[in-house]
Formats: sequence, C-alpha cells, structure tokens
Amino acid sequence: MTSSLAAVDARLSINQGTLKHADLATALQVTADAGIRSIGLWREPVQEVGLATAASMLADSGLRFSTHCRSGFFTMPEGPARRASIADNLRAIDEAATLAAAGAPGSSAVLVLVAGGLPEGSRDLVGARELVRDAIGELAPDAAAAGVTLALEPLHPMYATDRCVVSTLGQALDIAADFDPSVVGVTVDTFHVFWDPDVYDSIERAGREARIATYQVCDWKTPLPADVLLGRHYPGDGVIDLARLTRAVVDTGYTGDVEVEIFNADIWSAAPAEVARRTAETFAASVSPHL
Amino acid sequence: MTSSLAAVDARLSINQGTLKHADLATALQVTADAGIRSIGLWREPVQEVGLATAASMLADSGLRFSTHCRSGFFTMPEGPARRASIADNLRAIDEAATLAAAGAPGSSAVLVLVAGGLPEGSRDLVGARELVRDAIGELAPDAAAAGVTLALEPLHPMYATDRCVVSTLGQALDIAADFDPSVVGVTVDTFHVFWDPDVYDSIERAGREARIATYQVCDWKTPLPADVLLGRHYPGDGVIDLARLTRAVVDTGYTGDVEVEIFNADIWSAAPAEVARRTAETFAASVSPHL
Repeated sequence: MTSSLAAVDARLSINQGTLKHADLATALQVTADAGIRSIGLWREPVQEVGLATAASMLADSGLRFSTHCRSGFFTMPEGPARRASIADNLRAIDEAATLAAAGAPGSSAVLVLVAGGLPEGSRDLVGARELVRDAIGELAPDAAAAGVTLALEPLHPMYATDRCVVSTLGQALDIAADFDPSVVGVTVDTFHVFWDPDVYDSIERAGREARIATYQVCDWKTPLPADVLLGRHYPGDGVIDLARLTRAVVDTGYTGDVEVEIFNADIWSAAPAEVARRTAETFAASVSPHL
Repeated sequence: MTSSLAAVDARLSINQGTLKHADLATALQVTADAGIRSIGLWREPVQEVGLATAASMLADSGLRFSTHCRSGFFTMPEGPARRASIADNLRAIDEAATLAAAGAPGSSAVLVLVAGGLPEGSRDLVGARELVRDAIGELAPDAAAAGVTLALEPLHPMYATDRCVVSTLGQALDIAADFDPSVVGVTVDTFHVFWDPDVYDSIERAGREARIATYQVCDWKTPLPADVLLGRHYPGDGVIDLARLTRAVVDTGYTGDVEVEIFNADIWSAAPAEVARRTAETFAASVSPHL
C-alpha cells in the first residue's frame, strides 16, 4: 500500500451513487484501488448481476458494506401500487441483509428509505406523511427479523412534493419514534439537512435516541443546476459547514462509516477511478479533521 | 362596473412582482381595470418615478396599498456594506409609510424583509441568522416611529444560502419574538412554507402572537424551472394545499389583504392586463372559497 492509500480515512465509504455509470465490478474495483475501505451499494447495479453474485463480488473485494440504497417510495394510497411497493421494499430488506453479511467486518445492515412524493393528483402532504408511517409499520417486523435497520432519510424540502415528503430530520425522528431504534433509524445527509435552523438540535436528538443509522456528506452550492437532483458537490466545494455538522454527529457518539454520496452530471461523466481518488482527497481535507 | 368586476374578491391584492415588466402606471391601471382593489408595490418601479410621484399615482388609482417589497439583505458582517444596507432599509421604511398613507382606506404600512444569503466566502448560517436579528434590532425603532410593520419573510430552504437565511416560519417567529408585534411581524407565503411539517402549528403560533403582517399566495409544481426563483404559479395550477393553508390563516383571525405574488417567466411575458385578469380568476377559484 502506498503512503497515499494509507492516508485514506478508514471511516470513509463511497456511495455507489457517486459512481452512477460504473457497474458493480468497476465500482468495487476503483473503490478498493483508491484505498477506500467501505462502499454503499445501489439496488439497480446489484440486481443487474443478481444478489448472490453481488454478495460474492462484495466479499471478494474485501470492502465493508455501509448502506443499501435505496428503497421506500410508498406514499401512494392503498391498492395494487402500494402492495407492489411494500413487496419491493421487502426484497430490499433481504438484499441489505445479504450484502451486509457478505461485506468485511464492520459492515452495516442499513437500508436507506426515501419516502416518495405526493400521490398523483394529490395536494395532501399531511396525509402522504401518514402513509409513510404506515408503510414503515408494515416493514418493521421483517426488518427486525432480518437484522436490518431502516434508515428513513429526510430530503431537502425542494423535493417534498415529487420525491420525498419527509423534509426535516425532526420529522423523520418523529416517525421513527414509534419503533425500536435498531429497526428504524434515520439517514443524516448534509445536503438535505444543513439549511435547517433546528439541525443541531435534531442531530443531538437523533444521537440521544440512537437513531443515526448512517451519516452521508457532500456539499451544496448555487446556482443549482437545471436538474436540481444533481446539485451535489465534493465535500469542500460548496458552502455547507461540514466541520460543525460532522462534529455534531461525532458528538452524539456515532462511530460508523461516513458516506460520500454525490449526484452531479460532471462527476458522473468523469473516470470512476478519478472520482474515487478525488472523493478520498476531498473527504480527507474537509471531513476527516472533524471526525 | 360589470358583473365580472363585481365578482373580484375584495381581499385580493396583486403584488407588483407578478407584473414584473410593467411600469408603475401600467401596474396600477391594469389592477384597477381588473377590479382588484389592492396592490403590493416593489421598490424599483416606485423609485423609477420617485416616491412623491408614486404616492400621488397610487392615491389617484384608488387602490389600497398592501405591502412594500422588498428590503432586507442585511446578512453581511459589520462594515460599509452593512451600513449601506441599513441606510437603504431606512429609506424603504420611509417609502412604505408614505405609500401606505397615500393608498385607499384599509392600506397597510408593511415592509417585506428578505434577509439575504450567506456572506461571501462564509459557511456560517448560524452566524448569518444572528446578523438578521441584529439588523432588525437596528431598524425596529425607526419602523415603530414611522408606524411601519417589518414583515420578516421566511423563504423556501432552497434559497437559504444565496437569498434568505431565514428558512422557516418558526425561525422567523423566533426572531420576531424580541420585538413588538406591531413593529416586527412575518410574511406567510404559501410557496415558501407549504412543505414545512410544522407549518400549521407555526401559522397558529403566528396568529396567536399577532405576527401575520401579510399573507401571500401562489402555487408550486415540479419540475422546477432552470432558474428556481421563477417556479411560482397561479393559485390552483400546482400542488399546494391552498384550501387548508388559507383556512389556517383565516382561523388565526387574519383579516387583511391576500396578495398574489408570482415570479414566472411565462407570466411575466404575458400582457399585464391579462395577468391581472387571470390572477383574479384563479384567486376566486382557489383561494376565495376558503376566506
């Protein structure tokens, strides 16, 4: 191992979303080659090779598994579409358990949940939010049996109507409060929560209630791109106070992996090996000093 | 007056931002011609003709004056730029008082304040938010002397870093709490607050604390346009629950004007008379039934 690799933070995990156009084999290879010890996987590239093969490839890589991304999307009213979503979420729980068992020691059986937006034709955000709670109630027993933690993720309010009706960490914690923290936790993603006037109180609460299932970092800057989904940047390239947020998460006692998850058209079109290298480099500069 | 004009809601006010490219004379004319009884003015078109002339034109129009838009932008640290901002805000207070006195009976001396974003090169949202409180503390005595209510406006969190560090109604109320409600209130704008899981509690609190200085309506839909500032729509054209939000505001006892403020490139390029007509029509359909 070169000194450059030795310097890679042991807690860094790269989220496969950062390597959007790499297949699973490439993602695992460039991650390991960059000296990164952990990876969060996405369902589509896992399903592309099949779960058993993916688990075997992950085991061979020697990497830890930090999260499975992502499931959820269960805000539709009762009916066949909701049943299909619940069934798909159950498959995702199974995937997360299998992959966590295949990852290196220290892997986490964490399934990230993005709630989904308003049902078609609806203006009822309040009702959609109740449907999230109901869906988690349905999934919780299976998650518990599989040893998987459901990591409910609040998304930035600009996605509230078309992607995720869970908009603040406090709201996610309120929903999680009905369940055992080993079964239902939250995802703390700097991009989604940094703007919140209550964010430091909510992080402290999340820690106190043992709900921080994963901590994800990336940066925010303006102007936003035309597709606001793709406005995520390398740590340090924007204006999020990663120092204070990271210290707040650390202060709760969180000792798990820290994922870098970036959706950005320029980064997606760069060579995956270069993206992995730059992820490690920016993490070392902007996050590691605060861990 | 035709029956069509007679049907225009007496509480409707058109915000001049909806008629972005109309000069003051045109804005006043198309508003009155559409049967709308009230208008919220913007500083630039007022300054274009001069304050005294603007006040005279407003008086001649017979319209009420609902708000003056907008001032604020005082998140920079102490120094010449901050002093210039405070001085400009004092001019805005004077403008608001003068215009309110010139408007028809029932006019409101309300100055909308948009806080401003992060100072250049800063990541300190918490600090910037404190600077908002400090600025309002400086302006409050002059506002009180002029009989003007400063209406601090929380903007959607997607603008938190480049336009307005005040991101929720609860946060705005926390800042306002240090001041007399006749001097510092809040702007409740559906576009900016509808996504908030706490919005109904915050509206109830705003009413209880006598802070609702103005209620503004427009709609939200996705995808957002490339310039996310311009994603505002006619009431009813999107997914905001205007019925429930409007009833919540009404339930607090708010009896003032209700402004329609829309930033939208297509609407700005339409004929102002048509925009005024359509504003009245969509308001009647989507807001009036809940007033």
